[in-house]
This record gives sequence, C-alpha cells and structure tokens, in this order.
Amino acid sequence: MTDSASATGLRRPGGRTARTRARVLDAVTSLLVEAGFDGLSIDAVAERSGVHRATVYRRWRDVGGLLADVFDAAAGDDWAPADTGSLVGDLVALNREVFTSLRDESSVTRALIAASFRSAPAAAALREFWRDRYRRCEVVVSRARARGEIVGAVDAHRLLVTATAPLYHRLVLMAEQPREEMAEQAARDAACSVLPTGC
Amino acid sequence: MTDSASATGLRRPGGRTARTRARVLDAVTSLLVEAGFDGLSIDAVAERSGVHRATVYRRWRDVGGLLADVFDAAAGDDWAPADTGSLVGDLVALNREVFTSLRDESSVTRALIAASFRSAPAAAALREFWRDRYRRCEVVVSRARARGEIVGAVDAHRLLVTATAPLYHRLVLMAEQPREEMAEQAARDAACSVLPTGC
Repeated sequence: MTDSASATGLRRPGGRTARTRARVLDAVTSLLVEAGFDGLSIDAVAERSGVHRATVYRRWRDVGGLLADVFDAAAGDDWAPADTGSLVGDLVALNREVFTSLRDESSVTRALIAASFRSAPAAAALREFWRDRYRRCEVVVSRARARGEIVGAVDAHRLLVTATAPLYHRLVLMAEQPREEMAEQAARDAACSVLPTGC
Repeated sequence: MTDSASATGLRRPGGRTARTRARVLDAVTSLLVEAGFDGLSIDAVAERSGVHRATVYRRWRDVGGLLADVFDAAAGDDWAPADTGSLVGDLVALNREVFTSLRDESSVTRALIAASFRSAPAAAALREFWRDRYRRCEVVVSRARARGEIVGAVDAHRLLVTATAPLYHRLVLMAEQPREEMAEQAARDAACSVLPTGC
C-alpha cells in the first residue's frame, strides 16, 4: 500500500472509513432535521457529505440503511447514566438528558422518531437503540438496591419507562410546550412507585 | 322538497350528511390501516366510500382535511372515564381502554399516530383530541379528592400522563410485545405518585 492514503494513515482501521461514515451520517441527520424523511435520498446525502454517490449506495444501499446506521453508530458509544448517589438524582439526571434531546423543534431525536414511522429498518434500529439504552440504565436500579434505597422486587425496565415515557408523550406525541420541570417531575413520580417510604 | 331523499327522511339534519361523513371517515380509517398514509387519497376514499369524488374534495379538500375530521368526529362523542369507586380502579379502567386501542397491529389509533407524523392538520387534530380526552379524565382526580383518597395539590394532567404514557411508549414507540398487565402496572405506578399512603 503505497498510495497517499496509507502514507498519511488515512487507511488505518477506523481511519478513512470511519471518517466517511461520520460525514455520511452527519449528512443524514442534518438533511432529516431540515427537510424530513422526504428530503432524504442517496443523492442528497452524497451531495451534502461530499462522499461519492457510488460509495454511499454500495455501503448503505438505501435510505432505510442510512437511518439504521445512524442508530447503530449512536449505539456504539460508551454512554452511561450519571451516578449521582441517589435513585431520584439518577432518574432526574437521565430525564434531563431525554428532555434536552427532545426539547427543540430541530431535535435530531424527534426527527429520527418521525422517520421511524416511514422506514421499517429505521424503526427496528431505533427500537434496538432504545432497548440498549434502557439496559444500560438498569444499573441505576442495582445501585439503588445496593444503597438500600429499594428493597424487594423492582422491574428496572418498568421503572425507567415510567420515568422517561411522560417526556416522549408530552413533547413528541402531544407536542406540549417544553418546560424544564417536566424532567424532574416525571423522574420523581417514577421514583415514588418503588421507594418504600413513598415520596 | 319532494325528492325521495326527503321522503325517506334522509335529508333531516344529521341524516344524509351525517351518513356521508360516516362513510367517508370509515373509508379513511380502513384505508389507513390497510395501506398507511401513502394509501390515502381523495380518489381512494371516494372509491372506497362510494361517495362522489367531487363531494369528498369539496367538503374535505385533501388528505389532511380528511384525517383532521376523523379526530373531530371522534371528539364529538360522549365518552367519559369509568367511575369504579377508587383512583386506582379508575386509572386501571382508563389504561385498559388505551391498551386495547393500541394492542393490535391493525390498530386504528396506531395508524392515526403514524399519520400524524405526515400531516400537520392531522397532528394538530390528534393533539386537540388528546387534550380533550385528558380534560375529560380529570374528573378521575376530583372524584378521588372528594372520596378523601388524595389530599393537597395534585396536577391531574401530570397524573393522567404518568398513567397512560408508558403504554404509548412501550406499544407505539418501542413496539414491545403487548402484555395485558402493562395497563394495570402503569396505572398503579401512577397512583403511587399521589396516594399519601404510598402503594
């Protein structure tokens, strides 16, 4: 390998390929936020990203493949829920992240949820992404148990959904005006359902 | 008015017009469940309903107008939440209705939610429909207060969203396998957040 790419290290694993992927996926999300699902196409993504159309087509095949890879890429990070020292604190911190991701009109998350209603591969990838995120959050419950905050059987997934679902419902489905306190309120309401002392 | 329509009573207020509307809106929801938003058009609705294309166009104008009227028609009913004699009972009964409306693959409600991501008039009408439904449900909280089950300030909308949102999140957004107990679990978790004795 004597081409300039290898000389400059662009072909090392995770190098050029990873940068191409990042440029393409950035183009997907920016087009999606600007123009919605109907604004997405192999051609538009190639033009926006500066990556050759044939490369985009070969690697991602179609819009569903592009959207699915946005979630796959997002799932490959090392995100973990904040460890604040209390169940309520952890749920509030989590909900503040969810709230921030959904608050704005130009929210990428909102745009991806909308796109999931148009593309079966995108829907499947979004659901796998969420399942992974909720699984990572289950440590919030095991930490609370280790601290003695909760006793007995607690369904971690159920608790986490109780905390987060009101934000998706109010901000995405019902399009209520975002208010910062929604995040903390929903977190506290959920904690009430498992803390033996009530709230 | 000597035509046969008037003789048979078809032109009385709420008669022929109401039946035409019902046929058209039935066609809208059945097409939506079968073929999704892309299967909806003035022509398809006219053909399915047997109502003349010009009539459909004049009265509803476009697909957005048709979808908005589905919600307007649904909002015109006299639905009220069940009065079971307890806060938990009322929330469980409400959640069982929500669960039933979302459970099936062929759910009209699911299809309408998906369509609301394609049409601004449909989205606005769905949100107004939900706002009206949640307002009607607030009596659940005032009855609980009258019975002495809850004391102090309770945000009725917040409580009702805490009860219902997990069902929308799990069944619509996350596409989890429906399980009957989800309805009761979410209702009980929400009740925990306001009952002074905990749960």
